[in-house]
Amino acid sequence: MNIKINKQILLDALNTSSKAISNKSSLPILSGLLLDAKDNNLIITGNDLNLGIETTIEANIIEEGSVVVDASFFISIINKLPNDIINILYNDNIVNIFCNDIEFNLVGKAAEEYIEIPFIEKNNIYKINSKLMKTIIKQTNFSISTDEARPVLTGVLFKINNGELTLVSLDGYRLSYKKVKIDSLLDNLSIIPGKTLNELNKILNDDSELEIFFTDKHVLFNYNNVKIISRLLEGEFINYDQIIPTNFKSKMIVKTSDFKYSIDRAYLLSLKSRKASIKFEISNNNLLIISNSENGKMEENIKVNYDGSELKIGFNPSYILDVLKVIDSENIIIEFNNNMSPAIIKAFDDDSYKYMILPVRLVE
Amino acid sequence: MNIKINKQILLDALNTSSKAISNKSSLPILSGLLLDAKDNNLIITGNDLNLGIETTIEANIIEEGSVVVDASFFISIINKLPNDIINILYNDNIVNIFCNDIEFNLVGKAAEEYIEIPFIEKNNIYKINSKLMKTIIKQTNFSISTDEARPVLTGVLFKINNGELTLVSLDGYRLSYKKVKIDSLLDNLSIIPGKTLNELNKILNDDSELEIFFTDKHVLFNYNNVKIISRLLEGEFINYDQIIPTNFKSKMIVKTSDFKYSIDRAYLLSLKSRKASIKFEISNNNLLIISNSENGKMEENIKVNYDGSELKIGFNPSYILDVLKVIDSENIIIEFNNNMSPAIIKAFDDDSYKYMILPVRLVE
Repeated sequence: MNIKINKQILLDALNTSSKAISNKSSLPILSGLLLDAKDNNLIITGNDLNLGIETTIEANIIEEGSVVVDASFFISIINKLPNDIINILYNDNIVNIFCNDIEFNLVGKAAEEYIEIPFIEKNNIYKINSKLMKTIIKQTNFSISTDEARPVLTGVLFKINNGELTLVSLDGYRLSYKKVKIDSLLDNLSIIPGKTLNELNKILNDDSELEIFFTDKHVLFNYNNVKIISRLLEGEFINYDQIIPTNFKSKMIVKTSDFKYSIDRAYLLSLKSRKASIKFEISNNNLLIISNSENGKMEENIKVNYDGSELKIGFNPSYILDVLKVIDSENIIIEFNNNMSPAIIKAFDDDSYKYMILPVRLVE
Repeated sequence: MNIKINKQILLDALNTSSKAISNKSSLPILSGLLLDAKDNNLIITGNDLNLGIETTIEANIIEEGSVVVDASFFISIINKLPNDIINILYNDNIVNIFCNDIEFNLVGKAAEEYIEIPFIEKNNIYKINSKLMKTIIKQTNFSISTDEARPVLTGVLFKINNGELTLVSLDGYRLSYKKVKIDSLLDNLSIIPGKTLNELNKILNDDSELEIFFTDKHVLFNYNNVKIISRLLEGEFINYDQIIPTNFKSKMIVKTSDFKYSIDRAYLLSLKSRKASIKFEISNNNLLIISNSENGKMEENIKVNYDGSELKIGFNPSYILDVLKVIDSENIIIEFNNNMSPAIIKAFDDDSYKYMILPVRLVE
């Protein structure tokens, strides 16, 4: 192998593909990146068996070839080189890197040892705007479960039906629900791992088109010069339609920023306490937020618009703070039934997103 | 106690005084800040027995009094309050904090339990510009020793003699030496703990005057509305004059930025190796930097201005990187005798600072 390539272009591609690499991999070869030079392109692949990322960049290929380099070491070297043309050679297990008056030699591994990412047949194509994809990942991926005992809950449901994409995630305490239009002909039902969506979210950085392809076991995201291939989670998802309430007895409208700052303060006390809960007392267009712990007490009144009878209800403040980070609206609506039933939080002016949160039992 | 005070002014003062608080304190009361309201002032004190910081701010004192509050909890509450006037009361072990429609109640401790910082007699005054003080701390405090077995080396020598202040620090591998003018009448010789200088450096943030007072056991830094009182380190300092060479056989002048980037790259390989050393081969106005490890090799040539015979010498690259961060000069001078003797690094255009570094034995 013998190639010449611009430092910054190479570095960006290395950083993208290395997002697939897991520190916990039991296979040493998978802590490496596969560099494959052919047809005027350099293809860089990272893989942890669940997630693979392949980035293709143009390069001056003097001699075709491929090699596996240690990802973090190779990236740290390229990162420290001047912003100029880099010449990379591979011969007899040694990778030579030349740039100006600098020469690095390091050990490379044969490409044959690398475990390639699966090939995905591009059958049915789904298209979505990359900015919209970022938003819907942000609004659902935070409420997945971290409990490996129920694998399906560590991912986000992607349900495509009649040109609509519905995303759902839940962890037993709260649920996120998002519905958007998608350019598609065929229906689909898949559960995508949270880690995959997290890395995809980091890679999406412009306002362009993202192509999605599903097989039974895998999903492929095609984005500019990057391919992200992930295993799907197997199993039956929760029947979410049955658990999201649609009728409510009361409704509160509150200014998002006021509410956020208050919950943030109330959270301070629960942080120091074993029981992470705060209390809402709502009546006469006034929300009284009470937080109590061994270390002290907080009380705060906020003006709200409230339609319903007097209500006292408890919540875990961190679950409320989480959703306030992903709703981009001046005012939010919270709908309640009673202090034992789930509440719904949503933006005042946008019905596409709903967040369901279970109340915490109040200790009087 | 009953006071009213602006949030931001209070927060800044709390952050300053809390720099004295150690997480490792064995006395629970010292994880608190003493708030003392009297004569239209609020005095906030933090103390870890070695270092005490006292910040005085104007406040509307409705009723004088004092209390000890848990530092990190109290600061986190004040930090989250709106930028407005805060009312703080203390009665019957309870601290009440009011701000707009918000009320916090938390437990306070009686001021009588607090261990006050020692009173320092302001006898001989030394004056130095605060910006200059920051520079000289930066240039010496990084090369103190972390070895508690020789306490004097965990501080910086402050020697005042004939209107000159000399600072020296060393750790057995390298030594920093700085000399500046100081406004003083009397001589003094003290060793100031590195931690004290580190916290002082964070507090100094403008271009004004810093007053310094010494007693046998303590030093007091008086800076705007802040008093920093520290114990001095006891013991005999190393006779540094005898170990800093003054005559050299060869001299190299190199562009600071070129040199820094090269050492940074060479350091990458030594990071992965047990022996942290790089080799210089200097001849004919060329510096060849070689770094070698089990993982690979780096070679790089830099143009230099060299006056002397051919030299091969080894160094620990991190000790060179450290000094390059504190020299603010386009070019640096390195003076050598041979590959067993210490070298001196200094700015091309400034004789006030010298850095002595021991070479590493070369393994051929």
